[in-house]
Amino acid sequence: MAETTVLALGGNALIREDQRGTLDEQYTNALAMAHSVRSLIRKGWNVVIVHGNGPQIGNLAIQHEGSSDLVPALPLFTLSAMTQGQLGSLICLALNEVCKREIQGAVSVVTHVEIDAADPALLHPTKPIGPFFSRSEAADLEAGKGWIMAEDSGRGYRRVVPSPRPMAPIEAAAISALVDLGYIVVAGGGGGIPVARSPDGAYRGVDAVIDKDYVAERIADSVDAEALVMVTGVNSVRLDFGTPRARPVSEMTASQARRHLADGQFPPGSMGPKVEAAIEFVESTGRISAITTPELVYATLDEPGGVIAGPRGTRIVPDPEPASA
Amino acid sequence: MAETTVLALGGNALIREDQRGTLDEQYTNALAMAHSVRSLIRKGWNVVIVHGNGPQIGNLAIQHEGSSDLVPALPLFTLSAMTQGQLGSLICLALNEVCKREIQGAVSVVTHVEIDAADPALLHPTKPIGPFFSRSEAADLEAGKGWIMAEDSGRGYRRVVPSPRPMAPIEAAAISALVDLGYIVVAGGGGGIPVARSPDGAYRGVDAVIDKDYVAERIADSVDAEALVMVTGVNSVRLDFGTPRARPVSEMTASQARRHLADGQFPPGSMGPKVEAAIEFVESTGRISAITTPELVYATLDEPGGVIAGPRGTRIVPDPEPASA
Repeated sequence: MAETTVLALGGNALIREDQRGTLDEQYTNALAMAHSVRSLIRKGWNVVIVHGNGPQIGNLAIQHEGSSDLVPALPLFTLSAMTQGQLGSLICLALNEVCKREIQGAVSVVTHVEIDAADPALLHPTKPIGPFFSRSEAADLEAGKGWIMAEDSGRGYRRVVPSPRPMAPIEAAAISALVDLGYIVVAGGGGGIPVARSPDGAYRGVDAVIDKDYVAERIADSVDAEALVMVTGVNSVRLDFGTPRARPVSEMTASQARRHLADGQFPPGSMGPKVEAAIEFVESTGRISAITTPELVYATLDEPGGVIAGPRGTRIVPDPEPASA
Repeated sequence: MAETTVLALGGNALIREDQRGTLDEQYTNALAMAHSVRSLIRKGWNVVIVHGNGPQIGNLAIQHEGSSDLVPALPLFTLSAMTQGQLGSLICLALNEVCKREIQGAVSVVTHVEIDAADPALLHPTKPIGPFFSRSEAADLEAGKGWIMAEDSGRGYRRVVPSPRPMAPIEAAAISALVDLGYIVVAGGGGGIPVARSPDGAYRGVDAVIDKDYVAERIADSVDAEALVMVTGVNSVRLDFGTPRARPVSEMTASQARRHLADGQFPPGSMGPKVEAAIEFVESTGRISAITTPELVYATLDEPGGVIAGPRGTRIVPDPEPASA
């Protein structure tokens, strides 16, 4: 059976920073992503795609709030479900177009992810979503909608929401079955729809946004993936970023990565979760993880000394076995 | 292996006529639907659910148009994909809550449905979606957005969109595989995301809304279903509706149903597509179809003379075999 790689795609992979998010823009970006997936498929990999939804859920929240006098605005976890339909369709259409000779099909599964109802992160919203507001607009939104607003990167105020850790994708077995049947599966989009068990045992939606890198790790674990790749805007992880000693890393062991993380090398809002998800996957499975751009995924998954010349991204690999006595 | 029934659920099953569509309203309605599914599961049926999305896509279109100065409004087929995520999640959560002892899980598959790019229906929009407008608002919308507006049932003007016939669900094999594994599958929501082959062979989204009853028939065919049930607001099909001779029908053969359809017994906008989808399924498979309320699905699928007493809905059955010579 072919080996599986899980790709975690940033939400900005489909709406770039300088774009507003028309359908044409998003589809063009999805086609570029599909070409990079095709090179993996041709090499014999099964592929699962976990996409982000930051820009899309931000747009959708504006649309819901903007018409709330006419139509009830739906809660955040429902908006997350809607972006899964939206982007699942977009990505499947692009994959079916680009990889039509290589695959029997791409399938998007609406995915719920269980969180712990007692996760302390639920009480401390940290994840910014949606657009920037002025200080006075932010105060109105706090008073009017009960949103929590926070200053973000000197550019204004944004809504912040809780970002709890994922426990397990509810649809894990179905996703796994589809991968085994040879489908490219799109799952856990936007970090999944967060649900927690209520006292009566039923799952209830929770207004939070789970980090898609952590969800990709949970999905990689549940589909027995050989590799987990965080696809991002930079070729490789850098150490001492922003200093004269800044340098790219081609490979680090899980322990080395953990030390760099503890040293504060990777900021919490961007590279931190990617490195942490990579470490968790490598430590729990003994397999490899990678962090790189779409273009370099294929080369980075190639064994060191393998057939591919030229630039590669960052590999996170298991610690070497201690020498036996 | 268990036999499969496909349930086509009206969009009004989740937002009733007197409701605005808050999450609580929709979830309460979904729980009621899940209880009726549970009685089928307990009887040993596999279940596939094809839901409508009329009220939801109408709401979403208002939200997209209302904020189009801030955020690009997305095309109709993308809104359809979004309602699949929204309602797929809602229905799966309700099924997992109500049927947790009976099933291993419910899974929602984002479903595209192929239509013929040359379908003449694409040139003649007939299906009303979204809210009512005054004559002058309608004229502004035609001029400003290029929408086609039509007078609807004496209550004002609504946007009308093309409603082509479905050919095949793109994800048919994946849906079938999940049913065989014992999942309740939610598929073809809102009639599916309409796509047509472009000259280069790729599928492209089409701004249209496919009738969910016809899509349910195509899905029932592709999953080798034993029964197709159109779940609606009335217990049974009525003949001579609105006349003193009005009477419910407990059973009719496909040929009888076809005659009544030709006689104009079933209006095109409501009962017509249900009866037509039922006939197509019965004629192509030799199996049975039913039209009834959620509460009566279970009794109606019971064999005549079976264990269930009390009211039943309408069964459409194959024509009797001609007596052999």
